[in-house]
Amino acid sequence: MPATLLSTRDLDFLLYDWIGLESRLNESGLMDRESADAYFDLSRKLAEDEFLTHYKASDTKEPWMDADGVHVLPEIGKALTSYKELGLFGASFSEDLGGMGLPFLVTSASFVWFVAANCATVGYAMLTGANARLIASFGSAEQVEQFALPQIAGDWFGTMCLSEPQAGSGLGDVRTRAVADGQDALGDRYRLQGNKMWISAGDHDISENIVHLVLAKVPDENGVLPEGTKGISLFIVPKMLPDGNRNDVIAAGLNHKMGNRGTSNCLLNFGENDGAVGWMIGESGQGLRQMFMMMNEARIAVGFTGAAQAYRGYLLAVDYARERLQGRHIGQRGGDPVPIIEHADVKRMLVAAKSYAEGSMALCLFCAALVDRPEDSEASALLELLTPVAKTFPSEFGLAANDLAIQVHGGYGYTRDFDVEQLYRDNRLNAIHEGTTGIQAQDLLARKILHSDGAGISALKARVTDTIRRARHLPKLVELADDMQSALDKVDSTIEALKGCNPQAQIDNATPFFKGFCVVVVAWHWLDQALCAANKNCASEDDRNFVQGKLAACRYFFECELTSVTPMLTFVASGSDAVSSISPDFF
Amino acid sequence: MPATLLSTRDLDFLLYDWIGLESRLNESGLMDRESADAYFDLSRKLAEDEFLTHYKASDTKEPWMDADGVHVLPEIGKALTSYKELGLFGASFSEDLGGMGLPFLVTSASFVWFVAANCATVGYAMLTGANARLIASFGSAEQVEQFALPQIAGDWFGTMCLSEPQAGSGLGDVRTRAVADGQDALGDRYRLQGNKMWISAGDHDISENIVHLVLAKVPDENGVLPEGTKGISLFIVPKMLPDGNRNDVIAAGLNHKMGNRGTSNCLLNFGENDGAVGWMIGESGQGLRQMFMMMNEARIAVGFTGAAQAYRGYLLAVDYARERLQGRHIGQRGGDPVPIIEHADVKRMLVAAKSYAEGSMALCLFCAALVDRPEDSEASALLELLTPVAKTFPSEFGLAANDLAIQVHGGYGYTRDFDVEQLYRDNRLNAIHEGTTGIQAQDLLARKILHSDGAGISALKARVTDTIRRARHLPKLVELADDMQSALDKVDSTIEALKGCNPQAQIDNATPFFKGFCVVVVAWHWLDQALCAANKNCASEDDRNFVQGKLAACRYFFECELTSVTPMLTFVASGSDAVSSISPDFF
Repeated sequence: MPATLLSTRDLDFLLYDWIGLESRLNESGLMDRESADAYFDLSRKLAEDEFLTHYKASDTKEPWMDADGVHVLPEIGKALTSYKELGLFGASFSEDLGGMGLPFLVTSASFVWFVAANCATVGYAMLTGANARLIASFGSAEQVEQFALPQIAGDWFGTMCLSEPQAGSGLGDVRTRAVADGQDALGDRYRLQGNKMWISAGDHDISENIVHLVLAKVPDENGVLPEGTKGISLFIVPKMLPDGNRNDVIAAGLNHKMGNRGTSNCLLNFGENDGAVGWMIGESGQGLRQMFMMMNEARIAVGFTGAAQAYRGYLLAVDYARERLQGRHIGQRGGDPVPIIEHADVKRMLVAAKSYAEGSMALCLFCAALVDRPEDSEASALLELLTPVAKTFPSEFGLAANDLAIQVHGGYGYTRDFDVEQLYRDNRLNAIHEGTTGIQAQDLLARKILHSDGAGISALKARVTDTIRRARHLPKLVELADDMQSALDKVDSTIEALKGCNPQAQIDNATPFFKGFCVVVVAWHWLDQALCAANKNCASEDDRNFVQGKLAACRYFFECELTSVTPMLTFVASGSDAVSSISPDFF
Repeated sequence: MPATLLSTRDLDFLLYDWIGLESRLNESGLMDRESADAYFDLSRKLAEDEFLTHYKASDTKEPWMDADGVHVLPEIGKALTSYKELGLFGASFSEDLGGMGLPFLVTSASFVWFVAANCATVGYAMLTGANARLIASFGSAEQVEQFALPQIAGDWFGTMCLSEPQAGSGLGDVRTRAVADGQDALGDRYRLQGNKMWISAGDHDISENIVHLVLAKVPDENGVLPEGTKGISLFIVPKMLPDGNRNDVIAAGLNHKMGNRGTSNCLLNFGENDGAVGWMIGESGQGLRQMFMMMNEARIAVGFTGAAQAYRGYLLAVDYARERLQGRHIGQRGGDPVPIIEHADVKRMLVAAKSYAEGSMALCLFCAALVDRPEDSEASALLELLTPVAKTFPSEFGLAANDLAIQVHGGYGYTRDFDVEQLYRDNRLNAIHEGTTGIQAQDLLARKILHSDGAGISALKARVTDTIRRARHLPKLVELADDMQSALDKVDSTIEALKGCNPQAQIDNATPFFKGFCVVVVAWHWLDQALCAANKNCASEDDRNFVQGKLAACRYFFECELTSVTPMLTFVASGSDAVSSISPDFF
């Protein structure tokens, strides 16, 4: 039997046993477990039947451009039509917007099947949802009606236009200008001019219209653009105008990526002729704030993508290792070769990949559940703190899991006949887009820890401490509970040490701090998963193996990953200037 | 100025200041420094002018197959023709074989320019050299004349046919059979039948002939193949027979790889009709032994490939980081964006990449110098021990350097417009071919340490101890010298702990041991490089920056990499069964 995309058993465990989705659903009265399961199953089936089926093809046949614009593999459009027909574009939107009103945790547990099957194809839907949600949150009723509803229905697709060729992570330097051009029913109208880079789904031929959300600046009376991020506003700039005419937006080029190739990625030129028509959303100067209010979900979605790709690669590697016969047991002379899954080094690679993949999935589901509790201030504080972790751990360690999946396959894994190499290439994007790992590190350490009210860290410590307390009641977890406490103390003392440094020194080693922090958070989740698994009633041999697998992955993660945190955080706490004292001339 | 492929200044430092090549050359009387430098410079120039120029093209236009066999990009053939015209195929062969008789260290320091520029193209020459060397070492005079000389001249190319679809790392299970077919002037003739997989340069249209060296087994009188590796013999099987007829060898398929695409990689079918004609080299049953006598150089060549690719990616990243303007200094309000090389996190990525790339290059050059001292038993013992390290550290940490180079480039690094993504894909092969990292780990721990006479480890300890002693005389290195001593002690105590385990437990955690060991070896080289650099007379600001760069990379490697060794080796020494106790059913 070929490997499935993800483990339904594990997702059930995480959602129901670990997070308690069933009681949450019952409380909310939105849907029961049966309906949720039917929804997950339908997602799995659609992902397998229409998304996975062109995974290779959309890598081989990249988007291409001609005089009519950008074209993509027709199967991508077909899959998204099915996605639309099942109402999945609107799953997370309220019913008055034409959606299903499902919680983020539930739509996320559907989304993971699609990113596991084909992240590039479902990328169009993800961007469309994010776009519509921004308009629904900050736009006028007319803007919502005109631009959000067709996206929620899946008829139009959307994009996010932030970066420019000269401004990626540094959005304060965007140069796209928006000049006032009167008003109409859709609000304050502007004419935009500028170039936007890295626009995923920026042009294609698989939806009736494309709604661009564009960050731009309104020049002052002297034509000067305001400095920094405060002058940034957000504009709706559709490819096709409401009057049916083509707007002044063209795809000027396609980026050819290492992976994730099915999602067209464009350089868009706005306003090469009369200026692209756009309408401002909300008030002037609020663009970045509006965009960042959506960022938590976008970053968790990146995390889910990394997690799902790691997970599928892990399952493919397990499958291959069970079937591939090679080598003998130590001391065995003659006889047939054994399945490589019996070799210690292959087990090591598989359990490492398992700990990264399942740890990533647990982390992202945990954060998705927090998104659904906006009224709970402790949950919100924890979500703010953990969002960079949920974005980064699956990106970095998920890639490591994909790397191990290739290694388990040996030479075969390096060929395009097997999916693991594509998963690896696809996953490499995740540490870059939606804020690089370095940006996430600064966000975590500076904004979420050092310059915050401390609510996030307090909430985390309370939760970890509770897990440790419960783990101490189980003899087989006592030692791990002690290790967890030491790691938590180490995080604490490192933060205290950093508080005494100057602002530059505080963030000089933000990334090593962040990597250590990520591992500590995932170790906590592993301990908590192990606790939950150990308390499960096992009805069958399969159940017992599942529980043993969780305990083994937890133990591996503690013995081989958590132990790396001490030297990393010791380096950070020492205030070492090993990096910061380097002059650019030394390179 | 665009980044060069490698740093000539650093290569000069490593070869002359650190390894002492000049006095070695003078001792040998083969060539003087001036001639060596001219040779290196000629290599650099040819690499830049004819190898680098089709780096992208040979990735885009993969080898293809039609009824005539396999075709490759013509530029590959043209570059190799220039390589041949300069006599580079024969550089390392003795003059009586038509070569130049250059030491391995010298030919290696030429080779690195070509692998930095285009590993896939020079791959044809590397395989040809390895093939010719095997025939020259073990073949009869007639075999050498017929098959080695045309390769040394660069007219014919060669391959190594080891793996089969069902036997990769486990060569004892090869099924290719060789049936005796009389004798002729070229020796014992056989007819071969079987399939060989992963044959680099297995077929192409850029040389007059292709000489395959094939591992196969001679069946006994009942037609049964001998079991295990002892029954393996080595055969010369040319594509075109000496009488001008086509031999019974065909390319049955091409493997489509993630990277390193310019080297055609084939499934070869031998003997689909009358049996492929081949001649045995040396005696029956010696095939694997013969092959492995060449393995040290092949593995060091893989290390050089990883090192050179890491190095080029690092230089490209430095170049990009100097030019790319983005963000501001901490606390800076307004003003122009700064070059990203001034941001702490970018410096961290660059110094990490520098420490991996230059550390890899130093390690491989060091081992290449050992190859040139076969008469020195201490050097030979050290070479045996360090060969798996020289193969693996550049493969694993070199890939990490390429990963960082992409990250420094941000979104641009993920596109095929920049070389860093291709370097990353190309480099991913190195941890797989010529023995995976897991295989190297077992080789190091089991064969080279636990089941050896201890000469290798003794030689290593003596050398490291000497470096520590000298470093203690320099105040700025005293602390690092202490850290080095602790790390060496940790390796020692871990080996002692492993000696008490049973054979299975000894190698259960071979890979974590190996990774720790690799880092310790490279840390030693860094300390030694730092010592050498610190003692240099600096005539200019450039010189001082170079020395500061070496000291900074050394310090980074000690503070951020060597510190990770303690938890890794503690895990190994504990005899943990965290991995080995896992049942395949747990996955």
